[in-house]
Amino acid sequence: MARSMQTRTDAQTTSRAFFIDRYQSIRRFSEYLCEPLVTEDYVVQSMPDVSPTKWHLAHVSWFFETFLLSQAIPEYQSPHPQYAYLFNSYYNTLGKRHSRPRRGLISRPTVEEVYAYRRDIDDLVLNLLEHLDERRLAELAPTITLGLHHEQQHQELLLTDIKHVLSCNPLSPIYKARSLPSIPNSSPLSWVAYPEGVFWIGHEGEEFAFDNEGPRHRQFLQAFQLASRLVTNGEYLDFIEDGGYSKPLLWLSDGWNTVQTQQWQAPLYWEKRDGSWYMMTLSGMRAVEKNEPVCHISYYEADAYARWAGARLPTEAEWEIAAQDVPVEGNFAEQGLYHPAPLNNADPARKLAQMYGDVWEWTQSAYSPYPGFRPNPGAIGEYNGKFMCNQYVLRGGSCATALSHIRSTYRNFFPADARWQFMGIRLAREV
Amino acid sequence: MARSMQTRTDAQTTSRAFFIDRYQSIRRFSEYLCEPLVTEDYVVQSMPDVSPTKWHLAHVSWFFETFLLSQAIPEYQSPHPQYAYLFNSYYNTLGKRHSRPRRGLISRPTVEEVYAYRRDIDDLVLNLLEHLDERRLAELAPTITLGLHHEQQHQELLLTDIKHVLSCNPLSPIYKARSLPSIPNSSPLSWVAYPEGVFWIGHEGEEFAFDNEGPRHRQFLQAFQLASRLVTNGEYLDFIEDGGYSKPLLWLSDGWNTVQTQQWQAPLYWEKRDGSWYMMTLSGMRAVEKNEPVCHISYYEADAYARWAGARLPTEAEWEIAAQDVPVEGNFAEQGLYHPAPLNNADPARKLAQMYGDVWEWTQSAYSPYPGFRPNPGAIGEYNGKFMCNQYVLRGGSCATALSHIRSTYRNFFPADARWQFMGIRLAREV
Amino acid sequence: MARSMQTRTDAQTTSRAFFIDRYQSIRRFSEYLCEPLVTEDYVVQSMPDVSPTKWHLAHVSWFFETFLLSQAIPEYQSPHPQYAYLFNSYYNTLGKRHSRPRRGLISRPTVEEVYAYRRDIDDLVLNLLEHLDERRLAELAPTITLGLHHEQQHQELLLTDIKHVLSCNPLSPIYKARSLPSIPNSSPLSWVAYPEGVFWIGHEGEEFAFDNEGPRHRQFLQAFQLASRLVTNGEYLDFIEDGGYSKPLLWLSDGWNTVQTQQWQAPLYWEKRDGSWYMMTLSGMRAVEKNEPVCHISYYEADAYARWAGARLPTEAEWEIAAQDVPVEGNFAEQGLYHPAPLNNADPARKLAQMYGDVWEWTQSAYSPYPGFRPNPGAIGEYNGKFMCNQYVLRGGSCATALSHIRSTYRNFFPADARWQFMGIRLAREV
Amino acid sequence: MARSMQTRTDAQTTSRAFFIDRYQSIRRFSEYLCEPLVTEDYVVQSMPDVSPTKWHLAHVSWFFETFLLSQAIPEYQSPHPQYAYLFNSYYNTLGKRHSRPRRGLISRPTVEEVYAYRRDIDDLVLNLLEHLDERRLAELAPTITLGLHHEQQHQELLLTDIKHVLSCNPLSPIYKARSLPSIPNSSPLSWVAYPEGVFWIGHEGEEFAFDNEGPRHRQFLQAFQLASRLVTNGEYLDFIEDGGYSKPLLWLSDGWNTVQTQQWQAPLYWEKRDGSWYMMTLSGMRAVEKNEPVCHISYYEADAYARWAGARLPTEAEWEIAAQDVPVEGNFAEQGLYHPAPLNNADPARKLAQMYGDVWEWTQSAYSPYPGFRPNPGAIGEYNGKFMCNQYVLRGGSCATALSHIRSTYRNFFPADARWQFMGIRLAREV
Repeated sequence: MARSMQTRTDAQTTSRAFFIDRYQSIRRFSEYLCEPLVTEDYVVQSMPDVSPTKWHLAHVSWFFETFLLSQAIPEYQSPHPQYAYLFNSYYNTLGKRHSRPRRGLISRPTVEEVYAYRRDIDDLVLNLLEHLDERRLAELAPTITLGLHHEQQHQELLLTDIKHVLSCNPLSPIYKARSLPSIPNSSPLSWVAYPEGVFWIGHEGEEFAFDNEGPRHRQFLQAFQLASRLVTNGEYLDFIEDGGYSKPLLWLSDGWNTVQTQQWQAPLYWEKRDGSWYMMTLSGMRAVEKNEPVCHISYYEADAYARWAGARLPTEAEWEIAAQDVPVEGNFAEQGLYHPAPLNNADPARKLAQMYGDVWEWTQSAYSPYPGFRPNPGAIGEYNGKFMCNQYVLRGGSCATALSHIRSTYRNFFPADARWQFMGIRLAREV
Repeated sequence: MARSMQTRTDAQTTSRAFFIDRYQSIRRFSEYLCEPLVTEDYVVQSMPDVSPTKWHLAHVSWFFETFLLSQAIPEYQSPHPQYAYLFNSYYNTLGKRHSRPRRGLISRPTVEEVYAYRRDIDDLVLNLLEHLDERRLAELAPTITLGLHHEQQHQELLLTDIKHVLSCNPLSPIYKARSLPSIPNSSPLSWVAYPEGVFWIGHEGEEFAFDNEGPRHRQFLQAFQLASRLVTNGEYLDFIEDGGYSKPLLWLSDGWNTVQTQQWQAPLYWEKRDGSWYMMTLSGMRAVEKNEPVCHISYYEADAYARWAGARLPTEAEWEIAAQDVPVEGNFAEQGLYHPAPLNNADPARKLAQMYGDVWEWTQSAYSPYPGFRPNPGAIGEYNGKFMCNQYVLRGGSCATALSHIRSTYRNFFPADARWQFMGIRLAREV
Repeated sequence: MARSMQTRTDAQTTSRAFFIDRYQSIRRFSEYLCEPLVTEDYVVQSMPDVSPTKWHLAHVSWFFETFLLSQAIPEYQSPHPQYAYLFNSYYNTLGKRHSRPRRGLISRPTVEEVYAYRRDIDDLVLNLLEHLDERRLAELAPTITLGLHHEQQHQELLLTDIKHVLSCNPLSPIYKARSLPSIPNSSPLSWVAYPEGVFWIGHEGEEFAFDNEGPRHRQFLQAFQLASRLVTNGEYLDFIEDGGYSKPLLWLSDGWNTVQTQQWQAPLYWEKRDGSWYMMTLSGMRAVEKNEPVCHISYYEADAYARWAGARLPTEAEWEIAAQDVPVEGNFAEQGLYHPAPLNNADPARKLAQMYGDVWEWTQSAYSPYPGFRPNPGAIGEYNGKFMCNQYVLRGGSCATALSHIRSTYRNFFPADARWQFMGIRLAREV
Repeated sequence: MARSMQTRTDAQTTSRAFFIDRYQSIRRFSEYLCEPLVTEDYVVQSMPDVSPTKWHLAHVSWFFETFLLSQAIPEYQSPHPQYAYLFNSYYNTLGKRHSRPRRGLISRPTVEEVYAYRRDIDDLVLNLLEHLDERRLAELAPTITLGLHHEQQHQELLLTDIKHVLSCNPLSPIYKARSLPSIPNSSPLSWVAYPEGVFWIGHEGEEFAFDNEGPRHRQFLQAFQLASRLVTNGEYLDFIEDGGYSKPLLWLSDGWNTVQTQQWQAPLYWEKRDGSWYMMTLSGMRAVEKNEPVCHISYYEADAYARWAGARLPTEAEWEIAAQDVPVEGNFAEQGLYHPAPLNNADPARKLAQMYGDVWEWTQSAYSPYPGFRPNPGAIGEYNGKFMCNQYVLRGGSCATALSHIRSTYRNFFPADARWQFMGIRLAREV
């Protein structure tokens, strides 16, 4: 579905019916993801990085209200003016806001009221989409599209956040029972070679992309090789069993401090019981499956593993050059697995497997502006640029990302110690 | 009601019908207090001292299960063995428990499941009360009574905790709309004198009391005077306006550090808007009423106010000697006001007003064991004794305490910086 | 020496020659205690509670300057006006001051300059003492005496602080090599009984005492028993080996939290090497000597040990009643041992041994004002009263206290988790 | 001097006499820098990033001992084996070490003992340099050179650290009285243009460089412009007066948090008195000189200033390309100013001024490995590589750097919030 969007003509992609359909399906998907939850689940914030489910549901609606409705409708009156304070995430331009680490202290509005708020916003947006004249619709199209991509980002956070919330409960609640795939044999890892040269990377053109994906520009790359698949749990277990978490020379200095302070011994959500490793998934606890991609590891762990394996992490430019020729398909949120899948040898041969979906792939690239980068004007300019410091780029999407949300130029970013997203490793090396 | 209980004969107070009635009415009152809440309110923990409402409801049931059912029923099987981990508050004797500051991270069991748990426990307890033989009933009577007093303590915490939770919400939700009383004229403060002597204080006899209220013992008291009523908001405002919060010499050293670190300028829940003071109540925001007793102040503030006023706080022995002759009546939780009330001059003249109810009265006495104190044997011995350090005694109950829960010998205790209980000031002075 | 002072007549104790002699000898003793130090030792602050040695030396001089010289000399000009900011400890009345935890960041004034400052102050004070007329001398006598007792308090802190500083150095520097006494056999512990009654405690009369030692007042005490000697290392080792540090029921709740947070396993300065316990002393590391009084333990540990031993800590009134009849003598700083000494059986029989000197004895009494307590007027009123919160009283002095500094009514006080003073245990129990 | 070294032939630079001379002069310079200090100054650690002066002096000697003497001398016996624990900075390979933030708690070894230790090491190294055969000398030459560059790095830290220590003292001690230059007129800022292309950057060849400066490699650069000089205090004052510190949109998100948490209003060491800005220098407090380069600012401030000025920070590749043609000369530590100097218009015209010396120039480049980077083998491999995370690259040296220590390829690095080094701003922009 998402792919097809990217090959439509401009006329089609901005058509009224397309927008109405797309708006409805994406908004519905957010609520679909909440179906397994009880009211109490919506309220909890288990750490400052996590937001309560009902906050996500309200925030994405506030985003449409603030950036679309209040721009498009003369003398717009919000149904809940006070929500602007509660559901603004980080836009300083838009005034004061509720402190992020205190989102879990807010019992009202209730879940029901948040859904009613969504209904109100949906009615207003759909009414707008139906009645705007063509010229105005074309003008507002980028904002609508941005709002939808924004909601897709929060769908992913909603899943990773509720996973963290449930993981804090000693009763080990299950989000959704699913039998996760398992395969007996691992797929061998091979290396795919790329020559040196000056390459173009970054986004250009009419299709939607975030501001941080451009401008398109040239980079010189030395020849390099990329691993044919993701690092597996089995391979990562070898690292653990070789004492990876107790050898300081494998680690960045900050990483080693974090390992010691946080007493990390394994990926997040792993737990050793009677000598065997288990992991918490959105479908419950299960034994660690060796052929699955390793997941829920920090940049520090990805970097240390790569060093241990005699390799390194790819740069984001290397990853993008390689990804440009790979079709955007894989294990995404639409599949409903919400967990990375082992590589099936029966799949049609492809030299680079698992480039999209399954897990976000840490790159060694610090998140920084591309040459000539200019943030969008106005409040929306706070979307990406101001975070270009002390974060690392991840590429390719995960099992919690919507397929229609991802591109080869897409730059995700997190601090080096973040682990609660579906994050994993693809190795690279010099020739 | 409570008073009359204390004058019944032993035979009556341990009678089967009495226990059944009392059990049912106290358990019902907990749920009555929750009626104004929505599901989301039950989940939130707004600071480490606060527990979520559903935790309170479950914990008091776990208490009956642990100390009554599992003792009384051979081979007792808990309907939810895993709740022991979640709902044990602080009994080290009973095994590991969930970390207190993380109670707000637990979305399951749901509110509905917690009520179902209460039903299960109620059925088991009532069945027990109906079918135990007389001898066994008499043996277990102290535990049943303890369980009920324990639940009453949590009823008070439930109210003060939900007040704190709602206070964190910028939407200022109201627990229960009530018109709070207001009176035009303040009641003059006079001093009641007591002579020196050796006095008996502490609990003795068959009536229920906590272990920390005994043994009854003698203390020598110098002559002293006690204020005829509580300190009012109006009087406390004079202290504020005289710069009370910015004069270090009025404060204990720890208190002054706290004032500066926490940037205290007024009691908890007070807020200055356009030059006037408002306070958050369980019935919403309202202007500070000058003739109400001042409330939600720490020991540090009570002590500083007393010094400013040229007086001091009473010792707990002084308070108890004075209270022994005052009938236990006043503004308690049963009245449904949940807020201290101004002193009505029209009330029948009494030399000491407001001794019970309205607000807990800080004493200058550090919470320590009475001479010869022995905690109860077993896990229940952790109830009181282990907290006898770095806390101060408060006396008299508050507008959130059940009337049937209070006595002249009752010792409540909190750290010197606690403010979220209904805490206030009665002055004392030397002759 | 000190004892004899207390029996002189008023005329004598306020005589000019007496003051000059006493001033010189106490000031000299401070410097004598510093003789073993190198310049670098004077600078370090190893934790917020500790002050650098040069700070102590300067602060006590500032005290004479502020409370004596600037009162006694018209238009007094300080040789170093800026020292008032650096060397004021906690007198809010006297203006802003340097932050306590930052005392170790101040390299200047140098040690030499601090000694020069002492010389300046000494010259001024001695000049004053020589030339004041009799009436004025009598008026200022209390301030001079207070200044000298104040300096003696800092002599003790100077020793305990430098012990802590040296303990942080992996090179294990020695303050002063001394062979510490050792005896083969322990002295049996017996109990001394005291009857119930109304007793007078607290200070009264012309002899010097701090304001917190009065007013003298009556207390009713139940009959009690006091241990004939201090608890020994050997006895405390039994507690350790019986798992005392891992049994929560032995501990106050705050104490148990502290044990776990701080990972306490033994008294401060104890260290297990190859299965044997060693302790750091001011004379270097040595094996734990079983017959010495246990030392460097917190209130929490003293209380837990007492509970384990089936006893309790005495109240300060009990201690004082018992101490009134015991001569003030023992192992004090003048002996130069700076370490508690084992009880010598060869000593003349005394029913209560080690009441004075060796170690401060924790009482179970929270530090609070005596009935009718009024702090001294002016800045000096901040000396004691404002600390009457969240601290516990210790009695009897230690091996680091000057003999002439102690009395039966002397109230020392520290928070329940303090361990770096020479603090130990005497048991009490009900009859 | 340093420049000439870089043009000598290999034979010369590894000659015995050259090494002896260079070793002696660099070691002497460290001690020369300490001449203004009193013993007490050597001890203090004013924040975790700062080390005591005596620690620096000992650590650089330990470095020679560990990496040179123990390698070069069979069965080497350290004169102070226990110093390895105290003076290892961060080499995990070499065993346990003293905790960094506790360096200021160590009064022994004394300053005198540290100088004696330096003498011991000097004797051993010089003896080695005199008697090694030529082959062995050639083999060890890289280690000797590394040790000397290492000592030069610590000379700079010694200056910046003692500046921080003295700044914590309310007495405002002066390190060394100097009259700092001042000029009446500012030099106009112009832009120097560079064309796009593929460029070589990084170190190659026989001259000394740290491992992180290589391998030499190609980068594609778009056309850019570089400011002809550093940003001045006057220009930075305009930013302050325009409300730069109170406009969140100018700042990176982390930067804005830091500004608010740390309450930054101006560069480190600036202070407003009666409406005018003053700054603390190593020569004392002085009014802010408008034509001096702005200094002691964080990456966050440099980045915010650049955004406010409509420009950006250069990348490190841009800086290096521009610097390759500029002679290495400027205001370095050898000048003894220890403070950045205003640009003198009378200087011979040069299109790029102040590229070397004065202040380290923040680049926008995160500190990361060059393509193909391999750390040195063994413990020395911990020198640079493990810090390649969450730091930013600075270029060009400062007024506290030794001239002979700097090169165009030199990569200094600090976290984005560091301010205590001499750090400033050169602007860049797109064409």
